[in-house]
Amino acid sequence: MARKFLDDNFLLYSPTAERLYFDYAKDMPVIDYHNHLSPQQIVENTQFENITQVWLYGDHYKWRAMRTHGIDESYCTGNKTDWQKFEKWGATVPYTLRNPLYHWTHLELQRYFGVEELLSPSSAKHIYDACNEKLQSEEYRVNGLLQKMNVELLCTTDDPLDSLEFHADKNSSQPEFGTMLPAFRPDKFILIQNPLFISYIEKLSGLTISKITSYESLMKALKTRAEFFHSKGCLVADHGLEYICADNYTAEEIETIFQKAMSGQALSRIEATKYMSAILIDLGKMYHHFGWVQQFHLGALRNNNLRALRTLGPDTGWDSIGDWSQACALSLFLGRLDEENTLTKTIIYPLNPADNEVMATMIGNFNDGSIRGKVQFGSSWWFLDQKDGMEKQINALSNMGLLSCFIGMLTDSRSFLSFPRHEYFRRILCNIFGNEIKKGELPNDIEWTGKIIQDICYYNVKNYLLA
Amino acid sequence: MARKFLDDNFLLYSPTAERLYFDYAKDMPVIDYHNHLSPQQIVENTQFENITQVWLYGDHYKWRAMRTHGIDESYCTGNKTDWQKFEKWGATVPYTLRNPLYHWTHLELQRYFGVEELLSPSSAKHIYDACNEKLQSEEYRVNGLLQKMNVELLCTTDDPLDSLEFHADKNSSQPEFGTMLPAFRPDKFILIQNPLFISYIEKLSGLTISKITSYESLMKALKTRAEFFHSKGCLVADHGLEYICADNYTAEEIETIFQKAMSGQALSRIEATKYMSAILIDLGKMYHHFGWVQQFHLGALRNNNLRALRTLGPDTGWDSIGDWSQACALSLFLGRLDEENTLTKTIIYPLNPADNEVMATMIGNFNDGSIRGKVQFGSSWWFLDQKDGMEKQINALSNMGLLSCFIGMLTDSRSFLSFPRHEYFRRILCNIFGNEIKKGELPNDIEWTGKIIQDICYYNVKNYLLA
Amino acid sequence: MARKFLDDNFLLYSPTAERLYFDYAKDMPVIDYHNHLSPQQIVENTQFENITQVWLYGDHYKWRAMRTHGIDESYCTGNKTDWQKFEKWGATVPYTLRNPLYHWTHLELQRYFGVEELLSPSSAKHIYDACNEKLQSEEYRVNGLLQKMNVELLCTTDDPLDSLEFHADKNSSQPEFGTMLPAFRPDKFILIQNPLFISYIEKLSGLTISKITSYESLMKALKTRAEFFHSKGCLVADHGLEYICADNYTAEEIETIFQKAMSGQALSRIEATKYMSAILIDLGKMYHHFGWVQQFHLGALRNNNLRALRTLGPDTGWDSIGDWSQACALSLFLGRLDEENTLTKTIIYPLNPADNEVMATMIGNFNDGSIRGKVQFGSSWWFLDQKDGMEKQINALSNMGLLSCFIGMLTDSRSFLSFPRHEYFRRILCNIFGNEIKKGELPNDIEWTGKIIQDICYYNVKNYLLA
Repeated sequence: MARKFLDDNFLLYSPTAERLYFDYAKDMPVIDYHNHLSPQQIVENTQFENITQVWLYGDHYKWRAMRTHGIDESYCTGNKTDWQKFEKWGATVPYTLRNPLYHWTHLELQRYFGVEELLSPSSAKHIYDACNEKLQSEEYRVNGLLQKMNVELLCTTDDPLDSLEFHADKNSSQPEFGTMLPAFRPDKFILIQNPLFISYIEKLSGLTISKITSYESLMKALKTRAEFFHSKGCLVADHGLEYICADNYTAEEIETIFQKAMSGQALSRIEATKYMSAILIDLGKMYHHFGWVQQFHLGALRNNNLRALRTLGPDTGWDSIGDWSQACALSLFLGRLDEENTLTKTIIYPLNPADNEVMATMIGNFNDGSIRGKVQFGSSWWFLDQKDGMEKQINALSNMGLLSCFIGMLTDSRSFLSFPRHEYFRRILCNIFGNEIKKGELPNDIEWTGKIIQDICYYNVKNYLLA
Repeated sequence: MARKFLDDNFLLYSPTAERLYFDYAKDMPVIDYHNHLSPQQIVENTQFENITQVWLYGDHYKWRAMRTHGIDESYCTGNKTDWQKFEKWGATVPYTLRNPLYHWTHLELQRYFGVEELLSPSSAKHIYDACNEKLQSEEYRVNGLLQKMNVELLCTTDDPLDSLEFHADKNSSQPEFGTMLPAFRPDKFILIQNPLFISYIEKLSGLTISKITSYESLMKALKTRAEFFHSKGCLVADHGLEYICADNYTAEEIETIFQKAMSGQALSRIEATKYMSAILIDLGKMYHHFGWVQQFHLGALRNNNLRALRTLGPDTGWDSIGDWSQACALSLFLGRLDEENTLTKTIIYPLNPADNEVMATMIGNFNDGSIRGKVQFGSSWWFLDQKDGMEKQINALSNMGLLSCFIGMLTDSRSFLSFPRHEYFRRILCNIFGNEIKKGELPNDIEWTGKIIQDICYYNVKNYLLA
Repeated sequence: MARKFLDDNFLLYSPTAERLYFDYAKDMPVIDYHNHLSPQQIVENTQFENITQVWLYGDHYKWRAMRTHGIDESYCTGNKTDWQKFEKWGATVPYTLRNPLYHWTHLELQRYFGVEELLSPSSAKHIYDACNEKLQSEEYRVNGLLQKMNVELLCTTDDPLDSLEFHADKNSSQPEFGTMLPAFRPDKFILIQNPLFISYIEKLSGLTISKITSYESLMKALKTRAEFFHSKGCLVADHGLEYICADNYTAEEIETIFQKAMSGQALSRIEATKYMSAILIDLGKMYHHFGWVQQFHLGALRNNNLRALRTLGPDTGWDSIGDWSQACALSLFLGRLDEENTLTKTIIYPLNPADNEVMATMIGNFNDGSIRGKVQFGSSWWFLDQKDGMEKQINALSNMGLLSCFIGMLTDSRSFLSFPRHEYFRRILCNIFGNEIKKGELPNDIEWTGKIIQDICYYNVKNYLLA
């Protein structure tokens, strides 16, 4: 007998799993400590005209599926009407069976809009209208959507050049839904071979008092910006890199390389690597100074389709998983910071699941008893943000580290409708524990297991960020 | 209570899986779009003297198992009698529990010969005699064996130097069983460091009008051969490479490298890589011109045992899975073709399952909406052609792409008795869907799921090749 | 209904699995062919004062968990009392849910001490006292602990410089529990870039008659030591390496490199690699001469935490899984030995599970029918020595080789309380077979499957080492 799709006990396959989810996990508040939401839309409490705008605009996951299914670009990022785009998405959804989009789509329709029907060509118009109607109400403005999902705190991802005009100063009033904090993401000052590097430095120069004429003054300027972020309550930094660089270098070399780059000369790969090795260390020390958490998203191979990059820009669905060696340089990098007692709390997110075990064991090298779960193997993200991906991350972490110290899930999303992924994660987590209790691989101690689950869903990250 | 081994519902673990298999998958015709069957044996409709000849000759999978079990080479590739070889295989089979050979062996005995008994030392003689008797009948000639498996179309794998004498011209009559098309596999013109490279070029020179004196004339000669293949209905090219090369190069450099190679001088690794980078692009453009599908089998580390290579030659069971980085060069290669609007339909088959996620995401970078499922993550092959391997490929593709667009299974086999692997794949596929319907992870919509399954088993590949 | 944690049928999920375990696997003797036990403690039949000494001293697995949980170093390797350390371990255990430590801990308490209670802050004192009382009895001396686990033979891991004073000469009397043999682990003579290399050579010089003045005399000295090990019944060599080196080299080059190293000059990476390539081949030939098994533990990234290395030394819990390419050099290395008919029986243990399939197929390249299961894909070790890790290794080996030829489990442990890991492995193995019989993926032939299981648990390794 088949169970109903997406029923109350979705992904829960034992009575114990159900109890763990409903009695312990479900009602925990959400701390979404890394995402790409728009601070402006939160502060302005945006009302969306229709579901296409809140659901399809900017969602490169859906675009990739549509393109693979043979849908023309005009329905993804192009000039078709919002309804035409939604209609094509509705025509694609039945072909996304087994892709996380299938679960996310129906979970989001159900949780936000109460839509129980499956999205398909025949239901698309009906669902479109029903959702659009709801979106007109106060409850469906941005803050309402966040409140519906019990979001207590979220960290956006922000450029050091950003004015943070929508982020409140410490002790100033926060948005309606809860607390929104900025996160410091200085990638453009790390990726020295980017053709726009000089212009970024110039912009940074413009924002700070003294002109940036040296690597040393760059670091000073970044520190000034970090102090500004700190004044807005910033707790975390983030980096998106193919891999960590940890070459040997001297201060003189870095200064020379910086000058060379600023004079517009091309750098060799070795020079660029030295520079990145240096700035990652210097940033790491700075984060330690502020007591921030540093995050590293490693392993994405970006912008593979040059035609698309030219016409659509980055982050439009042309990225994939890379396969660089990660372990040695990451070990050296963390080791150098640790050696000088300047290793701050750190989260490593690998994108290639073949690296899961490397990362699950790497974190143990720097968990020295000083802070519980100091170095974290981060939650599954991007392509791995699905049932298999989460289970593999949870299992690798369990087998080679302490799952009980895990700080859990985040959305990493650009969409205000992505928060059911926390529910998705929690159901999967509870089911894993429930299954092992059922089989006698764990003791039948619901209360204790429930406590561990609440820690992973909420308390660990709260302590990690705020304690 | 244990289920009977290899019963009707083999590998199907829910009533839904059974319905999906029997009502939708089972009777779909087979399009085996990549294999190593002998065109001559098909056209001549070979009758085999005994089961050893059709089953053990040339089967390096079985030889590897026998050698691991401690069986002397004389029973594998050596001069023992056909019965002696079969007897040793029969003695090995009970020790192959959990290896795909165990399933394949009994599935093939059952499906082709109606043998329900397990192969073992005590049954070997009986089974040998029974199969040999059947092999004497008309029904067990090559075309009969293919018809028994409902094979509609198959693509052999052919050398550009091949006369294709057994392949029919377009519109000429095809073999009894259905359609047999050639495939263009120009590896020997790519692998420039092969000691026989010059002799291959000379042979190609002999087959085409003008002498090959330059890289440019090599490409002309290859195009002449491709035109010939095209006249025989060729639809696909194939390549067996350790990894894709995508270095920078100029036309002048390639010409110089070609001349150097033709003068018998050793090439540096960089030179060889530049050459391979160039010819892969030029071949890719040529395939695009003909509208062919290009296939890349990546990641095999071949001929590891030099003693065996000397005495037995290649493809005798001494190959394994390699662990090269695949992502960056593959991305560049596909990107360069795409950039010039010359990326033809492409299938990527990684041999190392650690690359599954890289490939499952790589294809999305070039699926641009122009052709449904244009770039494919190919079916599990060789060492991965087993239940775990198939499930991992299907799951990676499902999680990171659209399984619904998948063109499905092929045998990649040298044996006329390998076609139950399509059944094996279909059962596994149906079971995966059935299981998720049972658990409520997919809607209980048999008809729609059945349609998707029929697409994967048959219609997708038909459209992909022929539309 | 949840099953009782760690009941008699722990990890056995079908009646067939239970029968296979209890009727076939359970009572097989244990041959622990690789571990790091102290020969001295075995021969002196050490009595431990308390469970901390036998269970926590030297156990870097437990320390890592404690540190991750936020426990100060003084409770791991530091100067806290034995009870204080145990207390903190007891406080950590409930947080190790899903880590193998949780299973090992309770399995070991139950099997050795009859403790059925879970270790936790509230039970810690009680359990500590109960275990300590038992440890005072004769039965709980080292030999008793080994006998309790039915250990028939074990191989320690020994330095070529070791006096082997605790290992009996051939035909001399063995320890009470059974047979203890040494194993030859010459890592310090391979890792030429180690700052202590010269001092190791000098020590070796002191142990052998003629002074080591050349690479040639080093190999002679190592052979002298190997002869001494052989006289003690040594059957296996072992190596812990990041990866196999297999560069090209000449005898002259190696001699020059050796002299350079001995004169205290720094070697380039290329020089070191050439040296390691040479000595691995020469050692391999030597092992072949003695008929030994050579083992390679590949892929550990060691001593990542420099602060900890300085203060605590190696093997204290700061190692992790590396991600080097393994395939090409390993293939060349084995191929070179094979080419000269000097490839001895060989076991490869990868630490990164992403290499499982590479290794499972690599062994087949050199299994040439001469010796059943000659080249082995070794059992899961270190971070992989847990249910998932074992299942992955067993499945990769099954799918790509012959599980029936597998020589099975070993502890690799420094602790006399680790032997229930053999039981853990056997339960997992029996469950895998039982599950597939239940599902009809294997024939319901208990007797035959039981025989295969007994081979894997005992007879294969016995034949492999002793035949």
